[in-house]
Amino acid sequence: MSEGLAERLFGQLREAGFDGVGITRECYAEGETRALDIVEAEARRLGLETMRDAGANLWATLPGQEPGLPAIACGSHLDSVPQGGNFDGAAGVLAGLLALSRLREAGFRPRRSIRLLALRGEESAFYGQAYLGSSALFGRLKAEDLAATNVASGRTLRQAMASVGVDVARVERGEALIDPASLACWLELHIEQGPVLLARDMPAAVVTGIRGNVRHRAVECLGEAGHSGAVPRWLRRDTVFAVAELITRLDRHWRTLLERGRDLVVTSGIIGTDPAEHALARIPGRMTFSLDIRSQSPETLEAFYDLFLSECAGIAQERGVRFIPGRRVEAAPARMDAGLIEILRKHLQAMGQQDEPIPSGAGHDAAVFANAGVPSGMIFVRNAHGSHNPKEAMAMDDFHVGAELLRRALQELAA
Amino acid sequence: MSEGLAERLFGQLREAGFDGVGITRECYAEGETRALDIVEAEARRLGLETMRDAGANLWATLPGQEPGLPAIACGSHLDSVPQGGNFDGAAGVLAGLLALSRLREAGFRPRRSIRLLALRGEESAFYGQAYLGSSALFGRLKAEDLAATNVASGRTLRQAMASVGVDVARVERGEALIDPASLACWLELHIEQGPVLLARDMPAAVVTGIRGNVRHRAVECLGEAGHSGAVPRWLRRDTVFAVAELITRLDRHWRTLLERGRDLVVTSGIIGTDPAEHALARIPGRMTFSLDIRSQSPETLEAFYDLFLSECAGIAQERGVRFIPGRRVEAAPARMDAGLIEILRKHLQAMGQQDEPIPSGAGHDAAVFANAGVPSGMIFVRNAHGSHNPKEAMAMDDFHVGAELLRRALQELAA
Repeated sequence: MSEGLAERLFGQLREAGFDGVGITRECYAEGETRALDIVEAEARRLGLETMRDAGANLWATLPGQEPGLPAIACGSHLDSVPQGGNFDGAAGVLAGLLALSRLREAGFRPRRSIRLLALRGEESAFYGQAYLGSSALFGRLKAEDLAATNVASGRTLRQAMASVGVDVARVERGEALIDPASLACWLELHIEQGPVLLARDMPAAVVTGIRGNVRHRAVECLGEAGHSGAVPRWLRRDTVFAVAELITRLDRHWRTLLERGRDLVVTSGIIGTDPAEHALARIPGRMTFSLDIRSQSPETLEAFYDLFLSECAGIAQERGVRFIPGRRVEAAPARMDAGLIEILRKHLQAMGQQDEPIPSGAGHDAAVFANAGVPSGMIFVRNAHGSHNPKEAMAMDDFHVGAELLRRALQELAA
Repeated sequence: MSEGLAERLFGQLREAGFDGVGITRECYAEGETRALDIVEAEARRLGLETMRDAGANLWATLPGQEPGLPAIACGSHLDSVPQGGNFDGAAGVLAGLLALSRLREAGFRPRRSIRLLALRGEESAFYGQAYLGSSALFGRLKAEDLAATNVASGRTLRQAMASVGVDVARVERGEALIDPASLACWLELHIEQGPVLLARDMPAAVVTGIRGNVRHRAVECLGEAGHSGAVPRWLRRDTVFAVAELITRLDRHWRTLLERGRDLVVTSGIIGTDPAEHALARIPGRMTFSLDIRSQSPETLEAFYDLFLSECAGIAQERGVRFIPGRRVEAAPARMDAGLIEILRKHLQAMGQQDEPIPSGAGHDAAVFANAGVPSGMIFVRNAHGSHNPKEAMAMDDFHVGAELLRRALQELAA
């Protein structure tokens, strides 16, 4: 019976989040709340205890015989990017729900409580910063984070959080909403957002560590507008040519660092001239672009960031433009707990699966847990077409391999 | 008294067109119509005959003693780019009005009629194509031009033209709305949109020729979206890195052509990822950019355009993206009439001004008149900060030098 549980819930989530093109579950907004409500209703139906914490996240608990002991926690996030896919985040929540449901059905009475957490606000798409839900949980959000505005509505994160019931005053004071010591560990299943498991023909893998990032949501380039036909090249202060050259130079540095064996990905996902003033026949006097630099190595992140700043300075001088980077946002790389990696790998092998641990290119809430001192482990499930797009594709057979691995690890850890 | 006429009308036009930042007189829409109404009311007050033609342009006439002879025409356009300046176009119309007013005041009875034309739709900002008003006048618009949509409202040019009273059926048939042979010549005063007169410290100059252009309003680049952290560089099909490299390569070709003495300017005024799907943490799978290539030489235009196409093909192959250029729009370069240049230079010298003819970097309706067989001449007036921006600045003293030059030439030509 529970074989169909995940399939049914993925269907409900898809229906609730479909935007005409892909899935949109906006963080701290209606779409995400709908997803939490669906999971909560199902958890109750399955006989689990549920609650919302002061960060408005959802918990479902299979109570332990010694509830005073630190709990075994698992889960992931329920929000999505706009026009994203149905599995990024939700797969980890449903895998946890499935595991708790099966353990309960099997009559398993854990010593420690096993807690499923459905987090809000993992994606950076709406407020330019990732891991909002888990960061708030550990008292790691700052007042300036709360002042960030929604790219679409202009509403602040503070307003959005308050609208779904977050205790914003506590978040703003940097107060942890949960005692990290109350969690013995954190296990997160997530679809792989890169192509490695596909290439290696493996349904699932244990994760060794998570890339950190340094980001600017909107670097501004200011030059001078002018008639496109009448200003000779030497008198121009054209922001599009300046930014194009900057990105091309960064691309060259990126290639060079890869050739030296460094781990690095660089993306400018949002770029554009100003719709309020741009025109076909006008030299663009202003444009903005986002920057997302990721690496498993803090040194590589900083090295590339320094190259970015120095190329900005050089191009500014050569082309008579100015770069205003705005706020730098960062997330530290994180290592997964060696003991948890061991347990996960052992069960994966026992299940008769190929076991090749891989690093995570994308960031995950597990990095926040790990950096808050909660030993953390991750399971990746094979997935085609990456994520953050409607074509992400996880086979349900692969999902069940990952969910079963999670169940086995939870059972051993909670016993 | 007429000394204050232009100042007063510039003030009225500014007031009617101010958008909070600059001047917006949208073509074939209310802003442009308001400007035509202001000029028409003033022309009537000054005792001139006025009419609207089938292209909804405004004519004001000082009738000649032999009205059957081809008329001496002057004028410019009254529309503007969004958040543009007050002088681009309007200066030529008001200079013509001032000239006709003074000739009439002075009791001058011309042999040929002197006709002022206030054109619509010269700017390409709203429909991606320039010279709409003068092209329609000479039957040079095509059905596909009329199908172009407004960047802001999405309305077609056909709908917009019809809304202000243009006889769209005649325009669509490619019918000339005026007999070119009814015009003996066309004189257009315009602010210089480049920095040459400022650099040479001259209030006005006679124009030798006009740059043509080749344009694409929105070249599309298609790649593949994906998670910004999880897809390694070698598997990416990132459109922002592709377009940045394209623009950087075009910049290199541009520099090379300039070094070889070619006349060329290149602009990508509108560029951006797709707001419906872009995100900070998503590899941009789609972006668009405009392209505006200008030169006095048809050969240089085509040579650079070929480089554009071949760089697109090369980058598409290297980076796994596709470029879809969309519709190519062009305007031919034009030479000004030697006889008119002669007359204008003679009067400029007689006025005690330095006389150094210059080419026009920007395009003008005069190019359409010239290419339709109407002998054409142009006067440039010094102007700071270029045009197509709110900071364009023409000193009224300079304007009066240009307007007086126009008056003298009209008087000689019509006598």
